[in-house]
Amino acid sequence: MREKLPFTKKEYVQRIRRVKSLMQQRRIDVLIATDPGNMNWLTGYDGWSFYVHQGVIISLDEDEPIWFGRLMDRNAALIKCYMKEDNLYGYPEKYVQNLDEHPMTWIGENILNKKKWDKCVIATERDSYYYTAEAHFRLTATLPNANFINANNLVNWARGVKSTKEIEFMKIAGRITQKIHQRVLDVVRVGIPKSHVVSQIYETAIAGVDGYGGDYPSIVPLLPSGADASASHITWDERPFKKNEATYFEISGCYKRYHCPMSRTIFMGKPNQKYYDAEKALIEAIEAGLEQAKPGNRTCDIANAVDTVMHKYGIDRNGARCGYPIGVSYPPDWGERTCSLRATDLTVLEPGMTFHFMPGIWQADWGMEITESIYITDTGVETFCDFPRELFIK
Amino acid sequence: MREKLPFTKKEYVQRIRRVKSLMQQRRIDVLIATDPGNMNWLTGYDGWSFYVHQGVIISLDEDEPIWFGRLMDRNAALIKCYMKEDNLYGYPEKYVQNLDEHPMTWIGENILNKKKWDKCVIATERDSYYYTAEAHFRLTATLPNANFINANNLVNWARGVKSTKEIEFMKIAGRITQKIHQRVLDVVRVGIPKSHVVSQIYETAIAGVDGYGGDYPSIVPLLPSGADASASHITWDERPFKKNEATYFEISGCYKRYHCPMSRTIFMGKPNQKYYDAEKALIEAIEAGLEQAKPGNRTCDIANAVDTVMHKYGIDRNGARCGYPIGVSYPPDWGERTCSLRATDLTVLEPGMTFHFMPGIWQADWGMEITESIYITDTGVETFCDFPRELFIK
Repeated sequence: MREKLPFTKKEYVQRIRRVKSLMQQRRIDVLIATDPGNMNWLTGYDGWSFYVHQGVIISLDEDEPIWFGRLMDRNAALIKCYMKEDNLYGYPEKYVQNLDEHPMTWIGENILNKKKWDKCVIATERDSYYYTAEAHFRLTATLPNANFINANNLVNWARGVKSTKEIEFMKIAGRITQKIHQRVLDVVRVGIPKSHVVSQIYETAIAGVDGYGGDYPSIVPLLPSGADASASHITWDERPFKKNEATYFEISGCYKRYHCPMSRTIFMGKPNQKYYDAEKALIEAIEAGLEQAKPGNRTCDIANAVDTVMHKYGIDRNGARCGYPIGVSYPPDWGERTCSLRATDLTVLEPGMTFHFMPGIWQADWGMEITESIYITDTGVETFCDFPRELFIK
Repeated sequence: MREKLPFTKKEYVQRIRRVKSLMQQRRIDVLIATDPGNMNWLTGYDGWSFYVHQGVIISLDEDEPIWFGRLMDRNAALIKCYMKEDNLYGYPEKYVQNLDEHPMTWIGENILNKKKWDKCVIATERDSYYYTAEAHFRLTATLPNANFINANNLVNWARGVKSTKEIEFMKIAGRITQKIHQRVLDVVRVGIPKSHVVSQIYETAIAGVDGYGGDYPSIVPLLPSGADASASHITWDERPFKKNEATYFEISGCYKRYHCPMSRTIFMGKPNQKYYDAEKALIEAIEAGLEQAKPGNRTCDIANAVDTVMHKYGIDRNGARCGYPIGVSYPPDWGERTCSLRATDLTVLEPGMTFHFMPGIWQADWGMEITESIYITDTGVETFCDFPRELFIK
């Protein structure tokens, strides 16, 4: 039984049009999108099935996209996607994690060759997470006369400007994010196991807000303390929070796969001056960056504004970017992997673009994050969350 | 500051020996492991950093493995890995999600070429999740004279037989799994939003058991109801549980990245006969499979025992396998992607092997799962969890 789509069919059709227009400009006949976020955005498909090979095929010759995946997951596509049943292809179970038989061989033979796309220019997402080297070899082997090129994240770029409804979902995610941070402030204290605080974060994240259930975020809560905060991506364990350590909480609520990350730092005890200096620098850097965040300016203008402030305070960010686009996504990343807020990035800002603006400081033996998710408006910028922008002390 | 390793250094050294022996047998000089589970098992590395390119390199020429990843994550490697600092390589920040500069170019030039491995047989994990087609192209372009071959999951196979300490971690994960299922039975009822139940699942999973904090599982809780249970991988939303529907809960606790999944089905209301029949068939199939699970028998012997029972009850499982190996892992999968419990699989069972044994039934408009995580002992088999094996009715 087909579910109500999260967006109108008209919105999906418009997305496909946008992608086809970009395909035509780049001389692509057939595009294969394997990034689960792209699959969702193009078709409505949503399921934890990206641990097997799957994708969406768009051809300039056909109105609707084609979904392919494991036969068992075709039932999920029937429930979630807007396309007609004929455009959903399931490969047999024997192709699942079988070293001798690869799903992409089946896809090449049963879809692309049968559709007579064997001499086309076919673009694949060559650096997207679930498109493995082997998938590429198996697929190309079935179509020796096709011209395979890199899609260079074409669909990710098409996703950059969000619709009103997408912004609405991100605002719900943002309200969940705020609720989580408030919960953290309520429960965190010296001596409490980190795993306990994370259990409360998850409880709050999934319970959601005002009747909107929370979805799983594409990155787990990150909350490194003390020297571990120099190593941003270490996850928690059962050891307790210690006195006189800073912990930053990089956390996102998620609603219908849309994210809205935000970070805040909590110091338990009495911080020394370097933390107050870093707080001051970060807040000023955020304000300077937001000043530059408006239509017509570029991503590098935001990055340069941040760098100028950091330079003034003598802080070296080791060339780290200070943000990236966000939206619909699946593990392992909530970013869109297109532009970055970085000094060399020339992307022009447009209304509806959304970023996690994160001028964090990661030094050899400590770190601090105060970050905001933002969207570009017709005249400037808004933050998704409304939460005190400060170093919290407990 | 280096942390205490989850396993003794001796155990890691022994693992590397096992891998090198397999490499030599297969005429591999250098192996590049990019599966985060393999990286953890080989070196102790653990972090949510697999959204950027990273890996572990093992050469027959060198004692220790080499870790490579983003410069920012090198700090995490310093804290988590047992190798000396010289064997940890971080690529500069400008290579992070930058379409013009690829980390694998840096790896090829700064590690493999400098070590003079440019004419070696180099094996990569060609179908592992985070080894993209582009990563392969960029890497091979830097070493035109090397002979690149597929590692065919060599490290995953080496992980098959677990150590005593690994089994101990899985037992802790199993205790968390039981605790979650008990929590589900306590809170689930008609009318309650599914997201609320999931929030309680996560709260319990991460709080852990007896002082052992829970880690994030590599697959989110799956709990499809009614017709959605035909589509196993659809995730939850805020809609409430309905009367007269079955829901199966496929859930794993996780401890230090080790998993122990188990599924149970709950019917809310009064089930019709088909559910009782399916329950009977599944329990009998599990008993028949466990009977075959002993050293010397093969994976196909378990699968055939299940199929015989299913056939007797007239249930068609559409060729789906009935289990897979489990252990240390990262999203998107808690399986090991080597053998399967499947009629064509000839893997010989050995003491210390661990499986999620899951003879689920997925039909066109309903589904049921009763599953167990198991380990092969010297004489037979044990289940990790001790939880009533039945269809629960509420």
